[in-house]
Amino acid sequence: MHVLSPGLVRWNPAVLMHYTRYLRRAGTIACARLERSEAVSYTVDFQPLGRRGQAREGESLLDCARRLGIGIVSVCGGRGKCQACKVQVVKGSVSQPTSSDRETFTEAELANGWRLACQAYPGSNCRVGIPADSMAAPQRTQVEGLQTTVAPEPSVRDYQVELAVPSLDEYQGDADSLLAALDREHGLQCRRVDVGVLRSLSPLLRSWHWRCQASVRDDEVISVAGWSSPVLGLAVDLGSTKIAGYLVDLASGRTLSARGIMNPQISYGEDIVSRLTRVMENPEEAVQLKEAVVGAINDLAADLCHDIGGETDRIVDAVIVGNTAMHHLFLGLPVRQLALSPFVPTVSQSLDVKARDIGLRAAPGAYIHLLPNIAGYVGGDHVAMLLATEAFEAEDLTVALDIGTNTEVSVIEHGYISSVSCPSGPAFEGGQIRDGMRAASGAIERLRIENDMVQYHTIDDVPPVGICGSGVLDAVAQLYLAGILNERGRMRDDHPRVRTRQGLREFVIVPDSQRANGAEVVLTQADVRQLQLAKAAIRSGIQILLDVRDRREEEIRNVIIAGAFGTYIDLHSAIAMGLLPSLPHDRFKQVGNAAGAGSRLALVSLHKRAQARDLASRVNYVELGSAPGFTEAFVAAGYLGRFRIRDGKRQPIE
Amino acid sequence: MHVLSPGLVRWNPAVLMHYTRYLRRAGTIACARLERSEAVSYTVDFQPLGRRGQAREGESLLDCARRLGIGIVSVCGGRGKCQACKVQVVKGSVSQPTSSDRETFTEAELANGWRLACQAYPGSNCRVGIPADSMAAPQRTQVEGLQTTVAPEPSVRDYQVELAVPSLDEYQGDADSLLAALDREHGLQCRRVDVGVLRSLSPLLRSWHWRCQASVRDDEVISVAGWSSPVLGLAVDLGSTKIAGYLVDLASGRTLSARGIMNPQISYGEDIVSRLTRVMENPEEAVQLKEAVVGAINDLAADLCHDIGGETDRIVDAVIVGNTAMHHLFLGLPVRQLALSPFVPTVSQSLDVKARDIGLRAAPGAYIHLLPNIAGYVGGDHVAMLLATEAFEAEDLTVALDIGTNTEVSVIEHGYISSVSCPSGPAFEGGQIRDGMRAASGAIERLRIENDMVQYHTIDDVPPVGICGSGVLDAVAQLYLAGILNERGRMRDDHPRVRTRQGLREFVIVPDSQRANGAEVVLTQADVRQLQLAKAAIRSGIQILLDVRDRREEEIRNVIIAGAFGTYIDLHSAIAMGLLPSLPHDRFKQVGNAAGAGSRLALVSLHKRAQARDLASRVNYVELGSAPGFTEAFVAAGYLGRFRIRDGKRQPIE
Repeated sequence: MHVLSPGLVRWNPAVLMHYTRYLRRAGTIACARLERSEAVSYTVDFQPLGRRGQAREGESLLDCARRLGIGIVSVCGGRGKCQACKVQVVKGSVSQPTSSDRETFTEAELANGWRLACQAYPGSNCRVGIPADSMAAPQRTQVEGLQTTVAPEPSVRDYQVELAVPSLDEYQGDADSLLAALDREHGLQCRRVDVGVLRSLSPLLRSWHWRCQASVRDDEVISVAGWSSPVLGLAVDLGSTKIAGYLVDLASGRTLSARGIMNPQISYGEDIVSRLTRVMENPEEAVQLKEAVVGAINDLAADLCHDIGGETDRIVDAVIVGNTAMHHLFLGLPVRQLALSPFVPTVSQSLDVKARDIGLRAAPGAYIHLLPNIAGYVGGDHVAMLLATEAFEAEDLTVALDIGTNTEVSVIEHGYISSVSCPSGPAFEGGQIRDGMRAASGAIERLRIENDMVQYHTIDDVPPVGICGSGVLDAVAQLYLAGILNERGRMRDDHPRVRTRQGLREFVIVPDSQRANGAEVVLTQADVRQLQLAKAAIRSGIQILLDVRDRREEEIRNVIIAGAFGTYIDLHSAIAMGLLPSLPHDRFKQVGNAAGAGSRLALVSLHKRAQARDLASRVNYVELGSAPGFTEAFVAAGYLGRFRIRDGKRQPIE
Repeated sequence: MHVLSPGLVRWNPAVLMHYTRYLRRAGTIACARLERSEAVSYTVDFQPLGRRGQAREGESLLDCARRLGIGIVSVCGGRGKCQACKVQVVKGSVSQPTSSDRETFTEAELANGWRLACQAYPGSNCRVGIPADSMAAPQRTQVEGLQTTVAPEPSVRDYQVELAVPSLDEYQGDADSLLAALDREHGLQCRRVDVGVLRSLSPLLRSWHWRCQASVRDDEVISVAGWSSPVLGLAVDLGSTKIAGYLVDLASGRTLSARGIMNPQISYGEDIVSRLTRVMENPEEAVQLKEAVVGAINDLAADLCHDIGGETDRIVDAVIVGNTAMHHLFLGLPVRQLALSPFVPTVSQSLDVKARDIGLRAAPGAYIHLLPNIAGYVGGDHVAMLLATEAFEAEDLTVALDIGTNTEVSVIEHGYISSVSCPSGPAFEGGQIRDGMRAASGAIERLRIENDMVQYHTIDDVPPVGICGSGVLDAVAQLYLAGILNERGRMRDDHPRVRTRQGLREFVIVPDSQRANGAEVVLTQADVRQLQLAKAAIRSGIQILLDVRDRREEEIRNVIIAGAFGTYIDLHSAIAMGLLPSLPHDRFKQVGNAAGAGSRLALVSLHKRAQARDLASRVNYVELGSAPGFTEAFVAAGYLGRFRIRDGKRQPIE
């Protein structure tokens, strides 16, 4: 296997992120209609979705969930074979464990309520937890569940005041009168009123009969409104494919509305690198890219406000998190130095800019806060993830990673944080895979091989159209476990489903007879190589950071997997094919969109912003390609199977 | 005489300000060619113009000055009769005083070098001072002469730094590296880099090989440039008719270039009130008014930079002073509340706004500082005048006034400042006068009546076209002194030059035979009434402020008269017709464009800005129309002649 230069992979074209899938489905579930209750039945409360419904007599938890529109993964069709539909009964009783349950779970797990959903029948009203692993369509409440409780400490607060009515004796300016009232009634020593506020202040004060609500940030009045107006904040996770927006009540810290949209920059290039290339070649397009994304966020904010019957001019603060490239494109910063070695951002530290300087529609004097970037390829979204998961405070050896075209990895222990950026390429998103596709309707997202029979599950349960990242991951793992791929990733040619086309071996997943458009779905030897490159980049990144700390994989106590793709991957497969270290499953935590949660924390709490600044400044960033021992680690990490890497050598685990 | 409501006068249409004249002529003189030297002659240095030239044999100072293009006023044609061409020989010798000199000056004045320029012939190389009174065309050097020396203490300073060259180990952002270098090399704790700077920072730093000059304001980097770039500031006196701009080297405080242009808002209304009315009727025009004036200042700044071979992006700071209405129109603030009683500004306190928020072309992160407004009709230009003249620090009873369509008056004593706004109307600018005109070529600006003969001087010495403000003032004073007007302003009808047309008496200044277009120039009874209204407003304003302090006119130690019109008026006439209190001439100081000088002081010195804020906050603003005793004072102040007002009664002075 040749060693891949990080720069090279960075320049590969990539497909859209898995994000697509996460948010599309979130919408689907949110819109699912509530079932009418049936006679003689128990109520089942599915968490963390918060969906309740009546289980009909003779209906398993899986059937009940499906009827309610909740997508619990099942590959075997409810026969207790695929072990995909794991759930945990946290309240109430269900039928006794079956032999399938006993094959799947330990006694301790069974005692804790773990069951296969297809094997369990309600015996009372009950509450059932669905782990991310078993969700065909985790949705946003799962992400919201991650939000750690934080005391609201917003950067902007509203104050109600009554101003002195001007007269020939009270001739001071309206703004001066407002500042005097804030001092008199609230003891606030404000000194400035934003010029945008000044431009409408005088007629507004008169229409409100001199009573108003002033939004104050530091010593500056950044907005005025009538009494009892809401005080809104906007948190945005600005992904290269999807944009997630949250409208937050700044006073309580409560999320009022959440929505996702596509990033319109996609029409300028599906992945970040192709967008950067385009801007470097046509610098005038930087403005178009900026305006496209700002326009999209403006639309998103308007929709979020519409959800609650509010107006965007009550958005008095915003936090935007994104990778360094999205951060730069959003602000209209130059990107050439970001795209070329040594990949330096224009700015690393956190920023506060006036919303109007970016073109974001909000209160006249509102600011946007941008979390710090760690390096050219580790941005504020990773900082937000470390913040939301509290990984940055981990005492025990913890690995936190966000898998995508570029995978950011941090290793944390006793306040020490080191980070690396791994150019993992588009394979996990279906890119550069012959029959690969985005995680959209008809994509094979789960796959099992049992007695040479291939079982799969497609998104939306429709006939297969292609295979997406988690499906490819499953496929490689299953082919390896079935002995069809060896540890070097080479495909056997004596298996009934393996054939050679144009000198390239390929495994037939779906014969033409089963496929919607009449063609086949195959996994080629080249596809396997792509996946090996991708997982080698990630696994070697983890190893390099462990080497820096002089620690070993088996000492890792927690692995936090963030991001949409990370939510969908099957842990068994990821470990079996050597993407993730071989560790007990309870050390892994798939947390969904933690960057979005982090953006909301930073929006609501100045303390969290300070933590973000502090953690970013403490990070020891390691440039993967130039780290000692990288080449050896990368080569070793490309092998399939369970193994450890020690002194640059692979040590298989039996 | 009916009592005029201040509100009413405010709503009168007005003509263009005298400013026009000041700046037009300044340009003329600046462009005047230097004469070639002549044989056997002395060098004469005319100050404060700084113009030098050779006096030819047998040439008087007046002839010499005229040949050099310096406009010394002379009405009698150099016959020693009109006493207009007063100068002071401050160095070198001239011919002995003539009988005309002895009639004009005291022995002490003669000993101090005072002479009539038409009577004096150089006896050696000499330096001659021309008082503002004797100048037909004072120009900007006169204004610059007013600038008190101030230690430069600019709000923006430049620092040269060498940045760490980024590498795979030095991966921090370019902006972070810049801040680190400012700390390392200059001990500066900067925290922010303006987003406008960020947008070009990375390519610029690379083109400069990591050496740059950073402009720092407080804790913010607002501009970067290559090493040894100039650090420029822009000071602007934003008048409703004329805009004066000054380009200043912020490091030394030196003025590098100065220019004047017309305010293009004139096409939206000649005076402020008609512009405000227009905006109230068509609110969308506020944007056009703002853009017109900002565009003009952008052009002015570009021309100023062109003068020194510089670029506007090196303007790192700006100070704009103007009356409250111009301040609001420039910032795009609402004006309705300013135009209606109680005439409240949107903001009184000083402001710092980003230049880009106004549309002013300057360094990417540059700010504009606006001096505080005192009230709706006493703006930052009056504050600048009080600052530049140091009137605000006066211990002795001092009156400072800026005469225009609206005349601002302050009375200062022992740190106590009270101010009033007098709606003096357009008469002083030739408005609402039958044959009135702006102070342009052909306007009668000086006038004497001697033995029923009318002598006059026109601007540019061309045949008379009409009469401007200072000419009207002279005319009323001379008609009163000649007994043709009585103290109530009523015109005699038995004088050979007085006739009645359509029931209205009028005095013929220029018979049709002498006039360019064959028509006459007359002063009507109605014109006299207009001037009485105007001067009553100003004189009663002074009186009201004295009453507030319980002081009397004769106790006034200093009268500072600022502004273009104030520079041109003849003190004898102003006192004779009762516009100004009857006081010894040496208590009056005509200081020219003090607001422009104040804007430069505030640009160069943070200390001066603090003084401006402090003085504005200390002002006791008095609303003229509602002040006790105003009606009586106004009626008394309308009379012609020298008088005092005591207890609301006029006491003539013999």
